[in-house]
Amino acid sequence: MKQKPRIGFIGTGVMGTSMAGHLLDADYPVRVFNRTPLKAESLIAKGAVLAESIADLAAESDVVVSIVGFPKDVEEIYLGKAGIIANAPFGAILIDMTTSRPDLAIKIHKDASARKIASLDAPVSGGDIGAREARLSIMVGGEEDVFNQVKPLFAVMGKNIVYQGNPGSGQFTKMCNQIAIASGMLGICEAMAYAEKSGLDPTLVLKSIESGAAGSWSLSNLAPRMLKGDFAPGFFVKHFIKDMGIAAESAGAMNLEIPGLLLAKAQYEKLAEQGGADDGTQALYKLYE
Amino acid sequence: MKQKPRIGFIGTGVMGTSMAGHLLDADYPVRVFNRTPLKAESLIAKGAVLAESIADLAAESDVVVSIVGFPKDVEEIYLGKAGIIANAPFGAILIDMTTSRPDLAIKIHKDASARKIASLDAPVSGGDIGAREARLSIMVGGEEDVFNQVKPLFAVMGKNIVYQGNPGSGQFTKMCNQIAIASGMLGICEAMAYAEKSGLDPTLVLKSIESGAAGSWSLSNLAPRMLKGDFAPGFFVKHFIKDMGIAAESAGAMNLEIPGLLLAKAQYEKLAEQGGADDGTQALYKLYE
Repeated sequence: MKQKPRIGFIGTGVMGTSMAGHLLDADYPVRVFNRTPLKAESLIAKGAVLAESIADLAAESDVVVSIVGFPKDVEEIYLGKAGIIANAPFGAILIDMTTSRPDLAIKIHKDASARKIASLDAPVSGGDIGAREARLSIMVGGEEDVFNQVKPLFAVMGKNIVYQGNPGSGQFTKMCNQIAIASGMLGICEAMAYAEKSGLDPTLVLKSIESGAAGSWSLSNLAPRMLKGDFAPGFFVKHFIKDMGIAAESAGAMNLEIPGLLLAKAQYEKLAEQGGADDGTQALYKLYE
Repeated sequence: MKQKPRIGFIGTGVMGTSMAGHLLDADYPVRVFNRTPLKAESLIAKGAVLAESIADLAAESDVVVSIVGFPKDVEEIYLGKAGIIANAPFGAILIDMTTSRPDLAIKIHKDASARKIASLDAPVSGGDIGAREARLSIMVGGEEDVFNQVKPLFAVMGKNIVYQGNPGSGQFTKMCNQIAIASGMLGICEAMAYAEKSGLDPTLVLKSIESGAAGSWSLSNLAPRMLKGDFAPGFFVKHFIKDMGIAAESAGAMNLEIPGLLLAKAQYEKLAEQGGADDGTQALYKLYE
């Protein structure tokens, strides 16, 4: 793409607002849509154009980028009659950056291909801070030449951009990420709870263990918040439960047993039942207190 | 201690040989004992003196350092009639660096105190490489002034040396370390198995996830070995099972539920039953293949 493609950006929540903002800063023309238009205001102030509908946005875009809440939202905006695939021009490139079902990404790719529209699944990790600082890790599935065409776009939003393979591969990779984190969180909560119960100073314990074989991003970044009782969301419990549900379902479809993930999912569901759905994932610690 | 104290070192396995070697290199006079004297030969070649018995070693030492296999070994060498406490001179300092039961560390401290002998529990993490390169993390419980007296000794063997508090605190801290690792290993094995099953290239997946929120020491250091089928022991499955048993037992005594640890322990026990007791902990991956 020699000329800057026109971007249609759907989903201007915490992540999307930062990501679309970087595209505007890099002088891409950006049209935005959000279910709650109010949430697009800061982007409009920066030069984005508000689309009236998803169909309208899709029709006027060379590249559509979406980052919404749940797989059912992805399904609706891509596959519905008034959706992206039905309304995007031939040759458009669709990029779903929502963490969603791998099989849905494959279905979107198939339906889009039938209309000669390209599509990529490109979920991210790095959270609100990663989005704000354009340091996201972006995991991409789809055709490699399509990936190469839009790589400059990804480079505006992230740092660690890896093409993972066939359609769905981005989502499968993101599930690997969530599976590793899920059991890891159990370990961290249990270690910190054990520290408190045995009369240790958990902050001193962190000093002993975080630089060694027990070290992890979560231990260094989330354990201190647990200990301070800071359960504000970096990443919502309800979204993590969604992700673990996708991981459990897709593992089941592959006949893969992942008991650690299932245990973590059950624990997080217990937390949500106790009112913690809108907390950050570090709130799992509450179950151990 | 103005003059260099005479060290008695018990347990010259992989860890102990490196650690005692550093003490010799730092010009401490070292007397060694090992159940299998052959294993002390390299240290004797470096200038260590072979003790005939534990009683003999204890009687001739200002500081006794031990790193043996299991809590029952610790019990025997410290509390037996021909053991360390019965034979060490008044004023001696005993340092057990074995990963062992916190309640046993407290008992040793009590019995030693009754004979006016000081004792510290000071388990380590960092494995064979950490021992070889004198980069161990050393977690210490006992009296703080005793800790301060022998800190120069610790500094010869490790880097991250933290006084954690009362007798038993070193062991409690080490248990926190093992609890965090245990569930973390479940997550890593499950993530890598999911990657393989879904047709991804797991090495590319690591590239996407190891620098973000899923990142951990184990992911970066052990997952690549899993993927290569390299199950050689850095840390033995059988020793990890011992540690998880201690963690489970002591958590039970505190009425703390740690389901992640119990699941990891059950998985590792299954691995050991299938012949993996002498593999490295990354061999847990075999269960998922």
